[in-house]
Amino acid sequence: MVDAVIIGSVALDSIQTPFGEVKEVIGGSATYAALAASFFCKPGIVAVVGEDFPVNSLVLLEKRGISLKGLKREKNAKTFRWEGSYEYDMNEAKTLKTELNVLESFKPELPEEYTNAKYIFLANIDPDLQIEVLDHVKNPKFVVADTMNFWIEHKRQRLKNLIRKVDLLLLNDGEAREFFSTPNLYRAAMASLGLGPRAVIIKKGEHGALLFTKSTHFSAPGYPLENIVDPTGCGDCFGGTLVGYLAKTDDISEGNIRKAIVYASAVASHNAEGFGIEILKKISITDIEKRFQEFRRMGEF
Amino acid sequence: MVDAVIIGSVALDSIQTPFGEVKEVIGGSATYAALAASFFCKPGIVAVVGEDFPVNSLVLLEKRGISLKGLKREKNAKTFRWEGSYEYDMNEAKTLKTELNVLESFKPELPEEYTNAKYIFLANIDPDLQIEVLDHVKNPKFVVADTMNFWIEHKRQRLKNLIRKVDLLLLNDGEAREFFSTPNLYRAAMASLGLGPRAVIIKKGEHGALLFTKSTHFSAPGYPLENIVDPTGCGDCFGGTLVGYLAKTDDISEGNIRKAIVYASAVASHNAEGFGIEILKKISITDIEKRFQEFRRMGEF
Repeated sequence: MVDAVIIGSVALDSIQTPFGEVKEVIGGSATYAALAASFFCKPGIVAVVGEDFPVNSLVLLEKRGISLKGLKREKNAKTFRWEGSYEYDMNEAKTLKTELNVLESFKPELPEEYTNAKYIFLANIDPDLQIEVLDHVKNPKFVVADTMNFWIEHKRQRLKNLIRKVDLLLLNDGEAREFFSTPNLYRAAMASLGLGPRAVIIKKGEHGALLFTKSTHFSAPGYPLENIVDPTGCGDCFGGTLVGYLAKTDDISEGNIRKAIVYASAVASHNAEGFGIEILKKISITDIEKRFQEFRRMGEF
Repeated sequence: MVDAVIIGSVALDSIQTPFGEVKEVIGGSATYAALAASFFCKPGIVAVVGEDFPVNSLVLLEKRGISLKGLKREKNAKTFRWEGSYEYDMNEAKTLKTELNVLESFKPELPEEYTNAKYIFLANIDPDLQIEVLDHVKNPKFVVADTMNFWIEHKRQRLKNLIRKVDLLLLNDGEAREFFSTPNLYRAAMASLGLGPRAVIIKKGEHGALLFTKSTHFSAPGYPLENIVDPTGCGDCFGGTLVGYLAKTDDISEGNIRKAIVYASAVASHNAEGFGIEILKKISITDIEKRFQEFRRMGEF
């Protein structure tokens, strides 16, 4: 039995930033999200890798209590690869190259023991795959979906179909403005809610995150980092932590979602301080709790 | 006797936004700042206008309890004029035209009754004028300075000399990054503090504001506005409210500065909802208190 099901990509990433570069390190939305969620609950991932995916990385995920029953390992196929770079301001990844490989023909299958999960995180991947996984969960209590500009541009209608089925939508600020053709985040948030979800979170990177419901909003500050080394996966960490914390506490009140957002911001800000999953491997729940408390002091007046 | 002295410009502004335009309405950093401060204390302004400046606007300022003893009205001269426009995203003003007129030869003079003021706001104007006014205040308790990219680019050294003399520096995020040649706001803030002030506030528009001291930081959320009509003067309102609130409470502890920042954000966010000073003329302290409480609820977790 898993507490939360996460569908997304598992990838080999090559990343360049002004502060260095790494080649073919493990990444992907499901990897970051599951590692982040594993601080709080037992997540299970639905994803696919090729034969070339390093076994020691699978061992690492399992050691963190992540169920890999839903992870396919395709023979004679290569893992999804992403190559990206960040400019000096570290705000937005520029995709240099994408090799879909095993993702091209991926048919997600939900292991029987995942079908009773109450918390579902549809991390960034083709919305058709997100819908397919969601349709196989028997009685989800809370469904969170993330996406990216590529799907907004290329699968807008399918994405809208997905959004109708979820409780909480995650978008970053650029995506929100693009999706709803407005520079105004409040209007973009209201337009998101018009599609059906009961809440939307707009992730603003260094500027924090906003939660909107139809009648309330919450603003979580950004953590002022002195050294942003590599923002890859921060959005996925955010979503994974959010769902992991909600699954752990099994409380989907707005007050608890606010707490989950601050935990999510804490983990995401840690993640940006090193390349790839480097920091997620090192930190403990104590470090996360400490940063959570810093967030509290940072907003007090 | 005034509670706070504000030096800055008094202008006739012509503003274009995607939502309309106005011609030769009263504006300028001292005007916005003094109107904002007047919700909390009795400010006195040090500024200059030409013979063409509308008398009813002076009456308006006086009715708000603003001392105009330090406002020169030059015969046979024209008031400073600024013409600017905002693009669709409303983030940054594009200056279309500046006519310095009376500002060209302005020699600020501090009325005797201003020289004992404890709270000083050096609103955006030539740093030489800011320094001159500051040098004539006998025993200031708390000095706040604002500036703009023009002075960062054209009078960097004079601006640095000024910053050494102030307690609190205000910069917007773009100015902070430009001034200290870094995309990282934390580093820009630390570099600001290295020049001497005990605190720096980085104003981030829709993303709120950050306060940094050497050992602490505070993050105030942005107010999610559905309709941003005209952001002109928001930064000046922010500074004016901040100083006005500190003067009223006569408490410069960090805790009180945090409260002042939230009041400043409340007034600035109101100001963006109408053209020019339109909103500042309409709202009352009750509206400001109400928004202050909304800020409190918005950040609770």
